[in-house]
Amino acid sequence: MPRYKLTIEYDGTGYAGWQKQKDVSTIAGALLDAALAFSGQRVDLVGSGRTDAGVHALGQVAHLDFDKEFEPYRVMQGLNYHLLKPHPQIVVTKAEQVDAEFSARFSATRREYVYRILNRRTRPALEANRVWQVAETLDEMKMNEAATLLVGEHDFTSFRDSQCQAKSPIKLLEELSVARFDEEVHIRARSRSFLHHQIRIFAGTLWQVGTGRSQPEEVLEMLAAKNRAAAGQTAPPEGLYFVKVEY
Amino acid sequence: MPRYKLTIEYDGTGYAGWQKQKDVSTIAGALLDAALAFSGQRVDLVGSGRTDAGVHALGQVAHLDFDKEFEPYRVMQGLNYHLLKPHPQIVVTKAEQVDAEFSARFSATRREYVYRILNRRTRPALEANRVWQVAETLDEMKMNEAATLLVGEHDFTSFRDSQCQAKSPIKLLEELSVARFDEEVHIRARSRSFLHHQIRIFAGTLWQVGTGRSQPEEVLEMLAAKNRAAAGQTAPPEGLYFVKVEY
Repeated sequence: MPRYKLTIEYDGTGYAGWQKQKDVSTIAGALLDAALAFSGQRVDLVGSGRTDAGVHALGQVAHLDFDKEFEPYRVMQGLNYHLLKPHPQIVVTKAEQVDAEFSARFSATRREYVYRILNRRTRPALEANRVWQVAETLDEMKMNEAATLLVGEHDFTSFRDSQCQAKSPIKLLEELSVARFDEEVHIRARSRSFLHHQIRIFAGTLWQVGTGRSQPEEVLEMLAAKNRAAAGQTAPPEGLYFVKVEY
Repeated sequence: MPRYKLTIEYDGTGYAGWQKQKDVSTIAGALLDAALAFSGQRVDLVGSGRTDAGVHALGQVAHLDFDKEFEPYRVMQGLNYHLLKPHPQIVVTKAEQVDAEFSARFSATRREYVYRILNRRTRPALEANRVWQVAETLDEMKMNEAATLLVGEHDFTSFRDSQCQAKSPIKLLEELSVARFDEEVHIRARSRSFLHHQIRIFAGTLWQVGTGRSQPEEVLEMLAAKNRAAAGQTAPPEGLYFVKVEY
């Protein structure tokens, strides 16, 4: 059965996240409906990673198998045609035919996310639901100092949700960096894979550092505590973007 | 009467433009309603420039007079409080008390706009209504070459809408430049003031150059023609952002 790799952009506002669920609108559910309308086939869709309700993606990747072969370009056009009316917030930006061994989930070697904070007193108008607005002035240099201390292979128990189902809390964090772009502060995270809520907990913890509630070096104690309560709050989903996946 | 200068951010989607009109939702109309709810007063609002339906602003400026004095910070908070529910797409990012001589419109010395083109085959999901999507690959170097030829003091008759009410078509264009940022091509324009649809006609004309339909130097002939029909189409409003005003 021919397998297709899809690259997907979405505005996660109003969706109950990536994973298909009964009776609620999800990104994977919308794509499965479009795949059925396009091919007449009920397929399975495997995403490279689940995103929470309200989280966005610039380059989520998923794969699916169709019974018969289509031009990849037709797959993209066909899915987008069926997504347009019911789901203008979702678009397939690329479709490629891949080997049957390819897995969007297991073949991934690196995932990249960006967390956007709008650092100003007033709420966003243009970027409503697309950023976390923080009124207190953030010291992005201190945030970056703290972020750098978290890079590397660590037991990230303090930075994963209590619901996290990953077998091991040990991950090699390749990048965690903070930079300011005018009113926005961006946190960039890169790793083979992440734990449940890991980046949102990073964002909430770096917020503590940026506002002066914690000192940069305190993140090492949080890490050493191996206890979720030691780290910061889970930042809201609307600032998070799944940027890309490498294979 | 104390005068206040407001800086305003808005997502123009779904609004019939800046200028107050009967029976339709406009940006100025929304601000006037909020000013009435806040102060109990029907005021006049003078914007630095009108924006078309669907055009956005990061830093539109307007002024209004209240009968009594308020802390500028309270004006901002009060207007935003009354805007939040009915108009989440509009926010006052700054309020300052100014002299009675200050005019948001006539005191302005420079206005700056950016026009965003999303240059890819598929429609935007995250940036729907926020960019002009162009599928054909644009040559931004050629576009910038053409843009540079338009900078300076010229009779811009070819680049203004036939409905334009400005007394003179002669304007000093201080900047018109084109740059690519990954999938996006941005056109930046700076001038004391602009003619009706001038930037959208620039964008439509530069699109012709970027796709190879016109050569960069042909914009000089368009300019010399002093005829609206000589220049390109008026690009759609959703790519246009009123970035800032200087005084």
